[in-house]
Amino acid sequence: VDRSLLSADTQHVFELIGIFAFALSGAMMAIRKRFDVVGIVLLAELTALGGGILRDVVIGDTPPVAFRRLDYLAVPAAAAVVAAIAHPAVNRVLRPLLVFDAAGLALFAVTGTLVALDAGIDPVPAAVLGVMTGVGGGLMRDVVAREIPVVVRPDSELYAIPAAIGALTVAFAADAGASPAAVGAAAAAAVFAVRVAAIQRGWHAPGARSVNEG
Amino acid sequence: VDRSLLSADTQHVFELIGIFAFALSGAMMAIRKRFDVVGIVLLAELTALGGGILRDVVIGDTPPVAFRRLDYLAVPAAAAVVAAIAHPAVNRVLRPLLVFDAAGLALFAVTGTLVALDAGIDPVPAAVLGVMTGVGGGLMRDVVAREIPVVVRPDSELYAIPAAIGALTVAFAADAGASPAAVGAAAAAAVFAVRVAAIQRGWHAPGARSVNEG
Amino acid sequence: VDRSLLSADTQHVFELIGIFAFALSGAMMAIRKRFDVVGIVLLAELTALGGGILRDVVIGDTPPVAFRRLDYLAVPAAAAVVAAIAHPAVNRVLRPLLVFDAAGLALFAVTGTLVALDAGIDPVPAAVLGVMTGVGGGLMRDVVAREIPVVVRPDSELYAIPAAIGALTVAFAADAGASPAAVGAAAAAAVFAVRVAAIQRGWHAPGARSVNEG
Repeated sequence: VDRSLLSADTQHVFELIGIFAFALSGAMMAIRKRFDVVGIVLLAELTALGGGILRDVVIGDTPPVAFRRLDYLAVPAAAAVVAAIAHPAVNRVLRPLLVFDAAGLALFAVTGTLVALDAGIDPVPAAVLGVMTGVGGGLMRDVVAREIPVVVRPDSELYAIPAAIGALTVAFAADAGASPAAVGAAAAAAVFAVRVAAIQRGWHAPGARSVNEG
Repeated sequence: VDRSLLSADTQHVFELIGIFAFALSGAMMAIRKRFDVVGIVLLAELTALGGGILRDVVIGDTPPVAFRRLDYLAVPAAAAVVAAIAHPAVNRVLRPLLVFDAAGLALFAVTGTLVALDAGIDPVPAAVLGVMTGVGGGLMRDVVAREIPVVVRPDSELYAIPAAIGALTVAFAADAGASPAAVGAAAAAAVFAVRVAAIQRGWHAPGARSVNEG
Repeated sequence: VDRSLLSADTQHVFELIGIFAFALSGAMMAIRKRFDVVGIVLLAELTALGGGILRDVVIGDTPPVAFRRLDYLAVPAAAAVVAAIAHPAVNRVLRPLLVFDAAGLALFAVTGTLVALDAGIDPVPAAVLGVMTGVGGGLMRDVVAREIPVVVRPDSELYAIPAAIGALTVAFAADAGASPAAVGAAAAAAVFAVRVAAIQRGWHAPGARSVNEG
């Protein structure tokens, strides 16, 4: 499998933007919970890197990439500093920030899927690992902060579902011989667009069938 | 070590039944917590597969078996669909479901121990990994759902203790040269029987020595 | 890298003392939460061994050392028994126990860093893994017990910060060719001293910049 999607400098820049947005969401959660500076840095790093570390440990690619390149650790630390100093300003742009978070989600889900395919994993479990890469860090953030995980809340706008559809599309297309770079870029753009539209239009995932309806 | 306990088709069917029961318990917890459909699928997969994934990552057998065979991922998804549609009916049979959960616990603890022995781990830590395989998924379910873990609640009927005794028995017997298939089947049956008896008769693990008694 | 810091018998004894203190903190938390005996053993093992297991899994050194030597599993079990039987007495010496916990933190952070360097990891991520080794178990204890993690509470005395400074010092000094044994011993002593002083004098980490101050 051609990994050009991951190796391109442009993709790396997008990835670091996604990491920064994820890290800010972790740091802002820590500040809202009145954690100390250790908690702010911890939640920033965990939210931004947790999903990718989990993916790499599961596929046996150790040490995870987050421990092999200094920028992966440095960007969340920078986000923690920004949040600790400028959190009232960050709060004001939180809604715009969701756009960056959507970019991170889209890229993490797609690249996570391609990394898993590269490790010889079949399309469906590779897509599961892609979704884990995209939503794992946020899940860890919410567990440590003792919040109902955003990814399972009925009042959250669509999050894991566009990521799952994008990851499955990439997995089957790349497995069938399509160019990972092309299909990956298209899928990431689609995931991003659906997530942003879901936020703007208030699209939610359904819950269990209501008993009253039954 | 002869792995025939694991390779037999009968054992695999029992294992999938245990996975289904574990997954239903996760899905029902998600429904009780009013999680959306993502949360129902997530808790079903995590409860059913979390213990085995943890075991495989710890012994270095990556990617975990749950990502190598499609049925391991598909069965919890099916359980999530059943629960989302038919949860009032599932609730009615929840007590009977504990019997399947007991089968899952028994088989996971025994096969987890044998897998760890196979990986060259000594009997006692292999038994610890077996117990982790049996109780790990339920612990993750309860952490994500923000519940007091069932495995540590004083009002839970005996759960980890029969699993631990069964796992230790299998570990030492197989290490001493006994047939893993024979001793594994016997131990799994015993764990199952003790767990079911504990539910029916209300057997609980003790807590710390009460100060008033001291 | 010379691993004499780890191989020395004296260091191993200190490490087991740290494990015992960490395990007691986990067991006492379980007792305070009225968990049953399974919960007491589980939290003792998780608190004492969780950080090291996480480090070993992340660097790909599987099975983790905690599953290769019986004393690592046995010492927390012993601590759980002591706590379950003698918890009123343990409660009376809890403040002194923090001194042992400080020793565990100092040694885990330093040896965790050296183990990571040994695995070929760069100094900064190696120090991050060292801090994870020191604080990871306590974080897992607090997540399972549904408490605000001690490591992020603003009312906790300095905990992760001295560990981080010590880990970074060891990482860069050992990477630059200094004797790991010498620099490790000095850094561990410094981490221990700062942590004990922080407890005695009430030193806390700052939080985010207060909006009122801004």
